[in-house]
Amino acid sequence: MKLPVSTEWLLHCATSLAQLEPGATASAAQLADYYDLPAPYLAKQLQALVKAGILAATTGPRGGFRLARAASEITMLQIVEAVDGASMPYECREIRRQGRGALPPEDCRSICVLAEKMADAHRAWRASLAGVSLADILAELPAYAPERTRSRLTSRA
Amino acid sequence: MKLPVSTEWLLHCATSLAQLEPGATASAAQLADYYDLPAPYLAKQLQALVKAGILAATTGPRGGFRLARAASEITMLQIVEAVDGASMPYECREIRRQGRGALPPEDCRSICVLAEKMADAHRAWRASLAGVSLADILAELPAYAPERTRSRLTSRA
Ligand code: FES
Ligand code: FES
Repeated sequence: MKLPVSTEWLLHCATSLAQLEPGATASAAQLADYYDLPAPYLAKQLQALVKAGILAATTGPRGGFRLARAASEITMLQIVEAVDGASMPYECREIRRQGRGALPPEDCRSICVLAEKMADAHRAWRASLAGVSLADILAELPAYAPERTRSRLTSRA
Repeated sequence: MKLPVSTEWLLHCATSLAQLEPGATASAAQLADYYDLPAPYLAKQLQALVKAGILAATTGPRGGFRLARAASEITMLQIVEAVDGASMPYECREIRRQGRGALPPEDCRSICVLAEKMADAHRAWRASLAGVSLADILAELPAYAPERTRSRLTSRA
């Protein structure tokens, strides 16, 4: 069970964009430079966050990415699921219905108790990440962070 | 982020073994037959559960697998981690230390707040599964289940 390596990239990129002045943007090249990441692959992932409504992309010579809504309205869960998808890591293939021990259909009307407990665990994971917004993350950064991020992220193309 | 397909197999096999009479065993072939699973691959995975101290294997003509300890002492988390390993799905590669935005070492003495929140979520997932034992699962099965499991699982080799 692994999340893509790019999960870390996008969590950090979104956190950095959350520190820009309102209306300011950063390009994929600037973000790639800031974290020393492969620009083309990062650009693709940033587009996935645009598709998910987390980032907005503006075009033109001064174009780039910014948050699509307030930092308090973007959760870590939304970012992680934009990168990796929202499907559950545990897959129930209904093995209770197959083989010599197969249960009759009338005993399979409700979800298998094992699948249900796995779903409970996934819900706990989701709830934990849904409870943390980018604003919460910013609140835990040192006071000098936003100024430093802005100058290093946007001072060159 | 995917758990191996065999996670479902082993959760079900352990649940079935938990329904046997004390001391009784079932072979890999019997378990494979019961759930219509590929026996050689299942046997390998059952050995992983033996290694993890969840199952015990006895050899000889009447040999097979049984729980290594009481059903109340075996959690879903132990089974899932015996199958998939215990490493965290999120991997922090410390990207805060690289690129144009690299933080100085003195700012990286504690864990990155993003990595910490991801670890919190993983802890919530683990706690959820650690809170469910095989005895809890058995308690949710219908009253006729153990008798049915025993007769279908062990009536032929
Ligand atoms: S049938 Fe899929 S978890 Fe039980
Ligand atoms: S440096 Fe890895 S999550 Fe922040």
